[in-house]
Amino acid sequence: MPAFCCASQLFADIMGSMPAPLNRQIVLKARPAGGVTADLFELVESPRPVPGPGEVLIRVRYLSIDPAMRGWISAAANYSAPVPIGAPMRSFTLGEVAESNHPNYAPGDLVYGRQGWQDWAVSDGADIDRKVDPADGPVTAALHVLGLNGITAYFGLLEVGKPKQGETVVVSTAAGAVGSIVGQIAKIRGCRAVGITGSAAKVRQCLDEFGYHAALDYRAEADLSAALSAACPDRIDVYFDNTGGPISDAVLEHLNPGARIVICGTMGIPDVGPGEPPPVGPRPNRALLVARARMQGFLVLDHMPRAGEAVAKLSHWLREGRLRFAEDIVDGLEAAPAALLRVLAGANTGKMLVRVDDTPAGPAPPRAVSRK
Amino acid sequence: MPAFCCASQLFADIMGSMPAPLNRQIVLKARPAGGVTADLFELVESPRPVPGPGEVLIRVRYLSIDPAMRGWISAAANYSAPVPIGAPMRSFTLGEVAESNHPNYAPGDLVYGRQGWQDWAVSDGADIDRKVDPADGPVTAALHVLGLNGITAYFGLLEVGKPKQGETVVVSTAAGAVGSIVGQIAKIRGCRAVGITGSAAKVRQCLDEFGYHAALDYRAEADLSAALSAACPDRIDVYFDNTGGPISDAVLEHLNPGARIVICGTMGIPDVGPGEPPPVGPRPNRALLVARARMQGFLVLDHMPRAGEAVAKLSHWLREGRLRFAEDIVDGLEAAPAALLRVLAGANTGKMLVRVDDTPAGPAPPRAVSRK
Repeated sequence: MPAFCCASQLFADIMGSMPAPLNRQIVLKARPAGGVTADLFELVESPRPVPGPGEVLIRVRYLSIDPAMRGWISAAANYSAPVPIGAPMRSFTLGEVAESNHPNYAPGDLVYGRQGWQDWAVSDGADIDRKVDPADGPVTAALHVLGLNGITAYFGLLEVGKPKQGETVVVSTAAGAVGSIVGQIAKIRGCRAVGITGSAAKVRQCLDEFGYHAALDYRAEADLSAALSAACPDRIDVYFDNTGGPISDAVLEHLNPGARIVICGTMGIPDVGPGEPPPVGPRPNRALLVARARMQGFLVLDHMPRAGEAVAKLSHWLREGRLRFAEDIVDGLEAAPAALLRVLAGANTGKMLVRVDDTPAGPAPPRAVSRK
Repeated sequence: MPAFCCASQLFADIMGSMPAPLNRQIVLKARPAGGVTADLFELVESPRPVPGPGEVLIRVRYLSIDPAMRGWISAAANYSAPVPIGAPMRSFTLGEVAESNHPNYAPGDLVYGRQGWQDWAVSDGADIDRKVDPADGPVTAALHVLGLNGITAYFGLLEVGKPKQGETVVVSTAAGAVGSIVGQIAKIRGCRAVGITGSAAKVRQCLDEFGYHAALDYRAEADLSAALSAACPDRIDVYFDNTGGPISDAVLEHLNPGARIVICGTMGIPDVGPGEPPPVGPRPNRALLVARARMQGFLVLDHMPRAGEAVAKLSHWLREGRLRFAEDIVDGLEAAPAALLRVLAGANTGKMLVRVDDTPAGPAPPRAVSRK
């Protein structure tokens, strides 16, 4: 162990009677048996971590709250390992470098990464995705339009959905952080964009803010299939599916030959425990066969090597005013579990963010003083 | 109308007291309410048709009996118009030109087309797919390996399944007319071919005749998923799906990342009436999402402009001895409905054919003599 680390430890030992600098973390206490509940999480305090050689200390500013978190805490087969019990909840974050022993980062740098639900994190850079340039727009855009949501919308729609000018693109969770960008990219590409969302307020948001050609409130429609038919006079060529379930069943009744369905999320399908069979629904086989349609699972992580291409295009559209976004921000690390429930219930009115600490950038607080 | 036609008619009028030359047809009497039954069909007799200018008279030699016929007689949305009530059952056929007023066809020519369940048919060429050259192999191969079954296997596997050397390809109805060719092409392309079929005899046929690396009898396996797991140690990259239903549900549990599912048939999914919802089953969304897999409907008719390419390749493999086939032949036009039930029950032991008439090629029987 390098000498200064030992010195640091020695200093801490000497100062033993003073309150240690603390880190608050929200850790996963248990896996969901049925739905996700707040009591699966627990706020714990531990000593603030100290960066070693090649590491940085990051002060977490904002948390991104995402529907995918439901999968991250489940033990069921998934594309990423489940969050370990007792570990801080995995989360995309916007943070600020407070101390750096890493050549690529300096104190004050804003970083987009996966620092989790905590006040402070140490990183060797592996869980930092990129530095954020405030010149690109509001810094929180790094957590949605210019972050994973935007990259998901970009590659999911363009690489898997492959919309062609004049086609009809239907989007579920149309007002959501991903859906709203999908709809806007579809419009930029000359498609008819039709949104499915879950409240009258979100229908208005889809039409007035995000510019969908048509939008439906699936909770208010007695016959969603008929409403879709009316909203899509030329039927459906691309379906960006963030829900699965009954909403998608209705969409499958209106596919054009050669339609493409991008399976991006499954919020409309109930959770099941590990080893349990998936929930049942109408079999899609004949609809896919008759339309010679394609239904394809999409995971943005597969496309991260090309993330720069998407961010460049998205920030270009953002600067041109062709991409709009909405944020729904709550304050305080401790608000994170409730914010997640809000997202899973579809009750948020924009990209759900938790503002952990947005005091002006500056050096880390002195170590020997506990926060709060 | 050309003079000789009128003369012909005149001759028939003069011979009015003699029995008119007859055509037997099996027509569709009613649409299936639940499953397909023999009493949906009816044998009727009518005057043998007379070819007009630009038309040929075809004597039907063999009928191809195919699972897709279930869809053709249903009124539900489909990729081809339903067979009209009262019309001869639609069918691929091997026929012989008996008379020709068409510049491209001469008496004695063998033709692969869609002449339907009848002894005689008149055609302007639109429902003739190609002439059959006996030098290419047994002429009945035009109805399977070198016909729609082979073309289906070829494009479905290679264009939609896109197998790569060393991958594992699973085929349902593996001993069937399409499946057996899919398995053999998979082997030719250097893949591990695993067949799912419905009897011990067909398992043996898969292993001994068609050369599958492994084959399973889904009716005999208490745990099909576990059996598949054992037969596919490297999991599954391509699934050529002729069934849907519980067999396919089991396959979906073992997909490799990036797997491709070719939806070619839905024999494992019960029929429903028009407007009724499809049968339910486990939702595939999460399996497709986690594996980033693709499930795509495939209809061979979309690929017919390139049929020549497939037939050339398939007949090359056939001549090389790399493609084997099995036939299950019954005699007599009147046996067609029972043959269809046999296919839908999976009881056939090779490509199901009806031999309508295979008397040696020659001129049409004289008109004034009725057959039988």
